Amino acid sequence: ALKKKIEPWLPVDLAPIVADMPLEELAMLFRHSSREVAAAAFGYLAVDAQRKLLRQLTQEQAAALLNALPPDDRTAFLDELPLDVAMQMLALLSPEERKVAQSLLAYPENSVGRMMTLDFVTARPEWTVGETLAHVRENGADRETLNMVYVVDESGRLLDDVRMRRVLLSPLEKRMSELFDGSCPTLPATDDRETALEMFRKYDRVGLPVVDEFGKIIGIVTVDDMLDVAAEEATEDIQKLGGSEALDEPYTTIPLLKMVRKRASWLVILFLGEMLTATAMSYFEDEIAKAVVLALFVPLVISSGGNAGSQAATLVIRALALGEFTLSQWWRVMRRELMAGLALGVILGAVGFLRIAVWSQFSDIYGPHWLLVATTVGSALVGVVLWGSLIGSMLPLLLKRLGFDPATSSAPFVATLVDVTGLVIYFGLGYLLLRGTLL
Amino acid sequence: ALKKKIEPWLPVDLAPIVADMPLEELAMLFRHSSREVAAAAFGYLAVDAQRKLLRQLTQEQAAALLNALPPDDRTAFLDELPLDVAMQMLALLSPEERKVAQSLLAYPENSVGRMMTLDFVTARPEWTVGETLAHVRENGADRETLNMVYVVDESGRLLDDVRMRRVLLSPLEKRMSELFDGSCPTLPATDDRETALEMFRKYDRVGLPVVDEFGKIIGIVTVDDMLDVAAEEATEDIQKLGGSEALDEPYTTIPLLKMVRKRASWLVILFLGEMLTATAMSYFEDEIAKAVVLALFVPLVISSGGNAGSQAATLVIRALALGEFTLSQWWRVMRRELMAGLALGVILGAVGFLRIAVWSQFSDIYGPHWLLVATTVGSALVGVVLWGSLIGSMLPLLLKRLGFDPATSSAPFVATLVDVTGLVIYFGLGYLLLRGTLL
Ligand SMILES: [Mg+2]
Ligand SMILES: [Mg+2]
Ligand SMILES: [Mg+2]
Ligand SMILES: [Mg+2]
Ligand SMILES: [Mg+2]
Ligand SMILES: [Mg+2]
Ligand SMILES: [Mg+2]
Ligand SMILES: [Mg+2]
Ligand SMILES: [Mg+2]
Ligand SMILES: [Mg+2]
Ligand SMILES: [Mg+2]
Ligand SMILES: [Mg+2]
Ligand SMILES: [Mg+2]
Repeated sequence: ALKKKIEPWLPVDLAPIVADMPLEELAMLFRHSSREVAAAAFGYLAVDAQRKLLRQLTQEQAAALLNALPPDDRTAFLDELPLDVAMQMLALLSPEERKVAQSLLAYPENSVGRMMTLDFVTARPEWTVGETLAHVRENGADRETLNMVYVVDESGRLLDDVRMRRVLLSPLEKRMSELFDGSCPTLPATDDRETALEMFRKYDRVGLPVVDEFGKIIGIVTVDDMLDVAAEEATEDIQKLGGSEALDEPYTTIPLLKMVRKRASWLVILFLGEMLTATAMSYFEDEIAKAVVLALFVPLVISSGGNAGSQAATLVIRALALGEFTLSQWWRVMRRELMAGLALGVILGAVGFLRIAVWSQFSDIYGPHWLLVATTVGSALVGVVLWGSLIGSMLPLLLKRLGFDPATSSAPFVATLVDVTGLVIYFGLGYLLLRGTLL
Repeated sequence: ALKKKIEPWLPVDLAPIVADMPLEELAMLFRHSSREVAAAAFGYLAVDAQRKLLRQLTQEQAAALLNALPPDDRTAFLDELPLDVAMQMLALLSPEERKVAQSLLAYPENSVGRMMTLDFVTARPEWTVGETLAHVRENGADRETLNMVYVVDESGRLLDDVRMRRVLLSPLEKRMSELFDGSCPTLPATDDRETALEMFRKYDRVGLPVVDEFGKIIGIVTVDDMLDVAAEEATEDIQKLGGSEALDEPYTTIPLLKMVRKRASWLVILFLGEMLTATAMSYFEDEIAKAVVLALFVPLVISSGGNAGSQAATLVIRALALGEFTLSQWWRVMRRELMAGLALGVILGAVGFLRIAVWSQFSDIYGPHWLLVATTVGSALVGVVLWGSLIGSMLPLLLKRLGFDPATSSAPFVATLVDVTGLVIYFGLGYLLLRGTLL
């Protein structure tokens, strides 16, 4: 019954159904439906469901399914498997499909090549519209993206892309070369998939052709995968910004030990960095002993610098990710942060000064030299916030310049850096302002 | 020459050209090309370029352009303008287009309704495939998304969506109702656009129909806009996570004063919260005076809690945004963080203990009671990191439960909370362990 209900659909229309189905029903569906339908539906399942499902099929059923998978969905699936399992799966493929799968997997992780599908329609420039349409009708029925015709020369080099709608609306005897508009955005196979995302965002296409070093079309990338890339890249950046390694797996399903490892590495690095605060403070041990009141404000002052730094780093990292500016414009960013940091520092410094001044009218918790203490804390806040904003904004640029991911300069990382230097600023100012009185 | 070069293109193919054009050439292009071409090209410009461009046109040219804009691009453009300028623009529209524009702008900000376009093709269930194709040929040429036919009853209620490819491949005398597959994902106009994003991610469609409360189709949302939504929503979350308000404008172009205001509000709130650290520390003033060595480790201990909390908060917020779990599963998250927090705390505690123990062999900076100090710091780290992980993971869930954006519990926000409570844990443990010796 299920089979009869499913069979007449076009594969792509299966998405709404399979995406919500419980595993047992899914297994039934896959065992009983045609290979093409099953293959198309497979791509709409979560990785977890895909693996569970495959384990429920016989070797033979699994092989049939894997061979029929669209190449891009298959790459994405194999990519998530442990290497040994992936090898077993590859062995199930026909020699031809194995060659395709291996060539796609040979592209670097997170590259455009890894996301390619081979379902695209090509035509030759000398063909007429009528010939092209006949070719499409014969070969195009199962192509994922039928809304572009890619016109290539005899060696496969991409000459131009022509929108299918344009083909349909043109006289049958027109040559394809007459439909060229001379504009054809392409993706290099070895580029990072983030480049592809930017291209899609800019050109609003449903698919974009991928070319090799000779300009030969070797595949297309489709927009549905771009939505997933956008989510994954944002997740990666967000997790790094939060001061952990990217988990690369959903929070809810990642094994606890793996998660602890990914989080511990950064926590330990930050801890080692933060140890410098104890070292820095030990230099000021005598000052603290003489003026315990100074110690009271240590967390307040250094955290404010850390907070300002976290803000700046986050804003700059996101702007970099969206391509809002390039490294060569670092000076513009620095100027902005100089001014913003100064303004923010003055605001916080004023609040801090007032807080101590007002409190001192009602209690003598801050001693007879409260005005000097307030001045020290207030001016330290200006310095620390300004310093935090500068460090926070420049560090991502420096990291990028050195070839690292700017998102590595996470909020906690910047906060730690600023904590250490903030202590020096604070006690240095205290030493200057309080010498002869409190110290 | 430019006009002649541009004119024969289909509007959608303009994207690659206009996206890279300098402003002067753009103005020329818009003055000289047909209204339809100009209108389609307008949508591919950045907001900034759109505004500059419009200022270069005469009132008459601007009116023609605005009237011809696709409704979704027009809404997006008007939405970015100050209210008074938007009103002037609305006044330029024809009564009919103004009605459309106003009805779209009437939907709440960031709702699905705001993103709709009205360019979709409908058919009736009793029409044959031949009739439908004739109708499409007559009415569909300028429709943005021609790859779905929406079949509606006499009152406009959406019965099913049928893929155009399926229509093209079916016998001409078949009725549209025979092509139904009974599955038709729809978007309610008043839903948040994040819902739309989830639907697109799940169903891999190029467009999704929008229905009103009666199930009547009132528009479609297209996938190209979803890529922009994905970027904007991620930016919003990232900026909030970094401890500032969402800028809602590019970092590079937002006026400095506006940026300072958006950053200052959170910095001041965090500062006021962090003031509690000074209050908390003043309660332990006597202990600090007696054992200055305790003060040395204050930043180290509390920051570690803050870092652990930032990690947990960020991971949970992102998992929530991706819909990986629901609020009702808070207990699962808490159990994970209990275990992860304990493990991370033990790791940091051990490192901290060792650092003090080893150092003490070579110097007596930590005094004769270094073993007790090391024990205090080590156990405080376990407690603070565990506590930070719990606060960090539970706060986003609490915020969401109360109807706030979970991303509000930014890394600096969690760090501040944990700083204050971390001090109490640290000095409390110190009091217990060091009473009679150092204190
Ligand atoms: Mg082209
Ligand atoms: Mg776009
Ligand atoms: Mg694809
Ligand atoms: Mg796909
Ligand atoms: Mg990446
Ligand atoms: Mg990244
Ligand atoms: Mg801190
Ligand atoms: Mg349908
Ligand atoms: Mg998807
Ligand atoms: Mg649209
Ligand atoms: Mg559009
Ligand atoms: Mg939102
Ligand atoms: Mg959000």
